[in-house]
Amino acid sequence: MAAGDVKAKIESANKEGINRILTAKPFLVGVKPAIEVLPGMKRRSIFHAGPPIEWRRMCGPMRGAIVGTMIYEGWANSWEEAAKLVEEGEIDLSPNHDHSAVGPMAGVISPSLPVMVVKNEKYGNVNYGRIVEQKVQFGAFDKEAVASLQFWTDILAPSIERALGKIRGQGGIGIDLKSIMARALYMGDELHNRPAAGTALFALSILPHLIETAEDKEQLSQIISYFSSNEIFFLCLAMTACKATMDAAREIEHSTLVTVMARNGVEFGIKVSGLGNKWFIGPAGIIKGLYFPRFASRDANPDIGDSAITETAGVGGFALANSPAILSLVGGTAEDASRYTRQMQQITLALNDTFLIPLFDFQGTATGIDIRKVVKTGILPVIDTAIAHKEPGIGMIGAGIVTPPMEAFKSALRGYAEKYRL
Amino acid sequence: MAAGDVKAKIESANKEGINRILTAKPFLVGVKPAIEVLPGMKRRSIFHAGPPIEWRRMCGPMRGAIVGTMIYEGWANSWEEAAKLVEEGEIDLSPNHDHSAVGPMAGVISPSLPVMVVKNEKYGNVNYGRIVEQKVQFGAFDKEAVASLQFWTDILAPSIERALGKIRGQGGIGIDLKSIMARALYMGDELHNRPAAGTALFALSILPHLIETAEDKEQLSQIISYFSSNEIFFLCLAMTACKATMDAAREIEHSTLVTVMARNGVEFGIKVSGLGNKWFIGPAGIIKGLYFPRFASRDANPDIGDSAITETAGVGGFALANSPAILSLVGGTAEDASRYTRQMQQITLALNDTFLIPLFDFQGTATGIDIRKVVKTGILPVIDTAIAHKEPGIGMIGAGIVTPPMEAFKSALRGYAEKYRL
Repeated sequence: MAAGDVKAKIESANKEGINRILTAKPFLVGVKPAIEVLPGMKRRSIFHAGPPIEWRRMCGPMRGAIVGTMIYEGWANSWEEAAKLVEEGEIDLSPNHDHSAVGPMAGVISPSLPVMVVKNEKYGNVNYGRIVEQKVQFGAFDKEAVASLQFWTDILAPSIERALGKIRGQGGIGIDLKSIMARALYMGDELHNRPAAGTALFALSILPHLIETAEDKEQLSQIISYFSSNEIFFLCLAMTACKATMDAAREIEHSTLVTVMARNGVEFGIKVSGLGNKWFIGPAGIIKGLYFPRFASRDANPDIGDSAITETAGVGGFALANSPAILSLVGGTAEDASRYTRQMQQITLALNDTFLIPLFDFQGTATGIDIRKVVKTGILPVIDTAIAHKEPGIGMIGAGIVTPPMEAFKSALRGYAEKYRL
Repeated sequence: MAAGDVKAKIESANKEGINRILTAKPFLVGVKPAIEVLPGMKRRSIFHAGPPIEWRRMCGPMRGAIVGTMIYEGWANSWEEAAKLVEEGEIDLSPNHDHSAVGPMAGVISPSLPVMVVKNEKYGNVNYGRIVEQKVQFGAFDKEAVASLQFWTDILAPSIERALGKIRGQGGIGIDLKSIMARALYMGDELHNRPAAGTALFALSILPHLIETAEDKEQLSQIISYFSSNEIFFLCLAMTACKATMDAAREIEHSTLVTVMARNGVEFGIKVSGLGNKWFIGPAGIIKGLYFPRFASRDANPDIGDSAITETAGVGGFALANSPAILSLVGGTAEDASRYTRQMQQITLALNDTFLIPLFDFQGTATGIDIRKVVKTGILPVIDTAIAHKEPGIGMIGAGIVTPPMEAFKSALRGYAEKYRL
């Protein structure tokens, strides 16, 4: 095929991809146990963050999260019991992204765990997201960690689902996540490690309906206090909204758009629109950032989690300049943050028309990573992220900035050349 | 007195003033009808924004607000009836600031109107603030405008008061406004024309208590929807908290600190700590800003309102750089905003240790205007503000940036020289 023809096909495919990304309309429509909604979820499935990986190669926090989740499910009572079941092949392990889902950090989803159900009203795709919490997803599996999933399972998830039922009953679709995300950017969120405004705006959006559906005043008060004291809550919704946005742009023949960036704590994987469901991987990086007292980089697990779907959709690190408040968590100066965010324009295909950065005089965030541009410029996507301890059972030890391995993008570009015989 | 002695006295007085400002602890402790709490409020008093002014010299929006408020009180049914009563001397007109109070725009407070009661827990002073709304305070006095005060009077104010009662019943003081303000700055508020995060954070703080005290689910839902759709709500609390902060620094002998900046729509007045309760005035400025469709600067009333108490306490225009999102309302670029905010360091005595600007790598806001520095540098305080139509009955027509008249500061400095025989 002539070079000009190829270029035209790529541009047309990428234009279509960008159009799908910019016109996506993700709504929260439900909160349901994974077994009821997640495609491919079986009685003994556990889905996890990042590209595929076998138990024996998994990092500490992911193993810890799987054990914690198996204890939560009642399949095991200890590390030993859980590990034995996994080693005997009793548990189906599979990446979230291969089942329309995302999860933060280890991102482990099991049948009983309620997941956010987000529908892209424009394109019809439905996606799923795991709740954010500070323990099990960071690899803790003790009693307290496992118990921390119960408030979500028993109280918050069913209450939100009932509130959404109320909205549906009144002819509504659900909660418009794109609108909340756009307003949250005006309030200094970058929607990955700082979704504080998103959490407050979501709480105020759902509360009028929660009032009707909470079991009693005490429970309602407990839920409001939960939203007030868990600024990170909205990350789960931002991630699922970003997944629902990017999912509409997948599998467009010839497109060089990155639709997934995800890490399992050992490897960093990407998917590319024109290359179907194939993962392209490289080693997960070590995060440069700020550590909690008593911890240092030697304790850090490499980069982990599906939360880089936020950067894939043009927020998170791609909107870091918008969120100078986050720098107290991840380190660096406001000038660094502005530089990172501007740089992302060199590896993307568009400026978002809804996600605006007031500090950049309302310019949109850089959206739609093009594998060609990454390889050509040598500029890697900037991701801000939490840091998990490398040993299971300890948890979050800091936060910082990380980039993916160039290898993943080069390997994708090679895959592209092969598939399209360039 | 020798020049060195004077300088030492001023510095010591200003140090004390700044200490009181930085260590203030304003809490919302009540919401009560003005007649029950406001010092000097009589059966037929109306307090207003800015320095003292007689009816015949008042601007259109302030006259309109007074008429609307008299109709709200049931003292009159029309402009003519209201104006007649005022002209016959039946109504006591007096500035809010002379009664420990503040009000936005016309800022008109009458006996039945519930006011926010804010106590400075550190210094014991109690201050009062008028609710923000978009009609009467901008000079509208039609039925719809007057009716808009009823939701506040009948539902919201009593509900918040009952919720505060609940907090007191549990041994609490009230709602910690300084903490909300500090967090709101991290979320891109400047706390004058953009208190959006403050409103959300306040709503989430009071809601667990409101749940207990609201009359029914429908009312609670109505209140939550009110907070969601009135981002400006928290301005009233920010203003009253700033008043309670600055009030603790008033009447310190020898201090050159500005404790009040306020406008009545005709004149701009300031008070200075070492000069007691005396007003120093100059003509109110015309605002440079953005106008709503169909309006232009020829329609604008000069600068009006007590809301410049936010700038007096080091937020508002003094934190403009922190709030690039506000530029879509007031105009200008993020670079302008940064320049204004940095310039304010040249006319102030300290950097706030609680109100931090993440964009400036967490430097505090410029706090404590010194009349000497204003006159010496020629740099005037920067205030961001709403614009009222100059005719009564129309309302808000835009927002922008304004500075006070230098005359007020020069006149205060002359007053200072006279009083202290310099």
